[in-house]
Amino acid sequence: MARAIEWLDGKLRILDQRKLPREQIFADLDNYQDVVLAIKEMRIRGAPAIGVAVAYGIALAASSIRTTNKDDLLAQLNQVMQAFAASRPTAVNLFQAINRMKKAARGDGVAEIKKSLIDEAKQIHKEEVSATEKLSQLGAELIKDGFTLLTHCNAGALATAGYGTALGVIKAANEQGKKVSVFVTETRPLLQGARLTTWELMQEGIPVTLITDSMAGYFMKRGEIDCVIVGADRIAANGYTANKIGTYTLAVLANAHGIPFYVAAPTTTIDLSLTSGYQIPIEERSPEEVTHIQGIPIAPAGIRAANPAFDITPNQYISAIITEKGIMRAPYTEGLKRIGPRFLL
Amino acid sequence: MARAIEWLDGKLRILDQRKLPREQIFADLDNYQDVVLAIKEMRIRGAPAIGVAVAYGIALAASSIRTTNKDDLLAQLNQVMQAFAASRPTAVNLFQAINRMKKAARGDGVAEIKKSLIDEAKQIHKEEVSATEKLSQLGAELIKDGFTLLTHCNAGALATAGYGTALGVIKAANEQGKKVSVFVTETRPLLQGARLTTWELMQEGIPVTLITDSMAGYFMKRGEIDCVIVGADRIAANGYTANKIGTYTLAVLANAHGIPFYVAAPTTTIDLSLTSGYQIPIEERSPEEVTHIQGIPIAPAGIRAANPAFDITPNQYISAIITEKGIMRAPYTEGLKRIGPRFLL
Repeated sequence: MARAIEWLDGKLRILDQRKLPREQIFADLDNYQDVVLAIKEMRIRGAPAIGVAVAYGIALAASSIRTTNKDDLLAQLNQVMQAFAASRPTAVNLFQAINRMKKAARGDGVAEIKKSLIDEAKQIHKEEVSATEKLSQLGAELIKDGFTLLTHCNAGALATAGYGTALGVIKAANEQGKKVSVFVTETRPLLQGARLTTWELMQEGIPVTLITDSMAGYFMKRGEIDCVIVGADRIAANGYTANKIGTYTLAVLANAHGIPFYVAAPTTTIDLSLTSGYQIPIEERSPEEVTHIQGIPIAPAGIRAANPAFDITPNQYISAIITEKGIMRAPYTEGLKRIGPRFLL
Repeated sequence: MARAIEWLDGKLRILDQRKLPREQIFADLDNYQDVVLAIKEMRIRGAPAIGVAVAYGIALAASSIRTTNKDDLLAQLNQVMQAFAASRPTAVNLFQAINRMKKAARGDGVAEIKKSLIDEAKQIHKEEVSATEKLSQLGAELIKDGFTLLTHCNAGALATAGYGTALGVIKAANEQGKKVSVFVTETRPLLQGARLTTWELMQEGIPVTLITDSMAGYFMKRGEIDCVIVGADRIAANGYTANKIGTYTLAVLANAHGIPFYVAAPTTTIDLSLTSGYQIPIEERSPEEVTHIQGIPIAPAGIRAANPAFDITPNQYISAIITEKGIMRAPYTEGLKRIGPRFLL
């Protein structure tokens, strides 16, 4: 499996997720502005992967700041962190990473601070890999032999710079010898399901059926789906979960058909500072992502289009939240408070 | 508004709906095989429009059969009707049209039969136009001033060779001076919403917002949708309705949000021979329609894809069925029996 993000010789090597699966193109980013842009343009995407990329991006920025004055370094780093904070609003991992890097920016001199930032970024990456491995093992217990799962968007290795969240659980179940197969929704507008999730699952040899987003209800009604499993971009203190647009619709459908609906995410995705999921900011992206597919117009010129990138799934639709610290079930507020990191940016 | 289907100098002129809205290309079909192909390839689409095209296609075939023997003519016409019957399985209007044309194939001689078939096709067309105008006027009573509607796929003039069904109702409300605006789901895989419905509504000057199929739940939850209105490909005796894939999902969502869900269709779409909607045959189309968008691959080579073209919406999700003979509400079985044509092929 190609690595989505890698720290290599003081640069950030990323696999360009806009080009997959047609082209496997790696880019070596040697300045933080390119990392910010790669996040905005979703060449790097997925909440945990964004967090890791931001950490490395801050380390990269620090390395290239030419100053011998510690305060000057910290002032410049503050600007860098603001640029990252403004890159995408919904995934909380981004803000968690900034928060941790801010705390790590300490030491007697400039060189020491720069080194500690690189160390912290590597540590964040390491912890994310470990968390996704752990939660995947835990979550696999929910998957029975013979299950057909449905997943949305991409919550795999590409999205996490680790083992994956929703796809990690599926992969772990598969590695335990359970026979599983997966319906993958294409996930318009940017087709992460069609392009990325299919690609990851095919590499694992797990049987995949690609469907359009509009087909999920049809297959649930026919009794062909045993459970739905998705990742998350931010989980509020009450368990309400922001995830890729379309997730809420799948949750309502799963509920109507009595199908379990699972959210898999590392605890870095939990935001205890928000008491309700409806406080999570929803990114509105360019209408062109809707009116065009891979650059080709699919609608009349001048059409108005909406493009909310995420939606909120209320906790009553969520059967369980799978984290590296355990599987939570309703009521979520107590469980999440116990395990979730406090977001204190 | 360009006409989707027109009988012109003994040929069938169609507007190629695969090319819209980028190109407005008309094709003059002068043999029935091309009409069959145009239906299979969805250059002509929408249940009522398919019915009209089939009627003209049979008249066209009759005109070109070179025989002076009446029985020979009828035998050859039987083959033609079988070819049309095999073109697409779900829309019942196709079978209703064949049925009517079969009954119209009578007269003392070959010339008389040929003429009566052309007359019958024109009559079917005229009745469809009239039915869609009537049902649109009736349905408009359900639409209040200031309503924001959501529609799926294309149930407009293009789909009906008339005034439209779901879009007819919206157009009629607009013409009555009610301020309405419309969310249009793009309708993957073939994007009839993005390509055709937006184009029709923009020509009427009705405000349109294009969304992906996955966004409908988001906007319902936000309270931005006042009602959902769709067309139909076949309505069973119990009111269960086959319509474009994704319709069922919208109906479940509308139900979960307490939003009225209307089906608009001429009575030619009603099939009283089926006691349950689950007896309606669902067409499975080529997986390439899912794995490719306008010829461009969007998924890894060799991926398996499902492509059911329709789904079934159970009657408990349908607030009303709007026909030219009145607005039906639950329980549907009695009302539909009273107004629906008996399908007797």
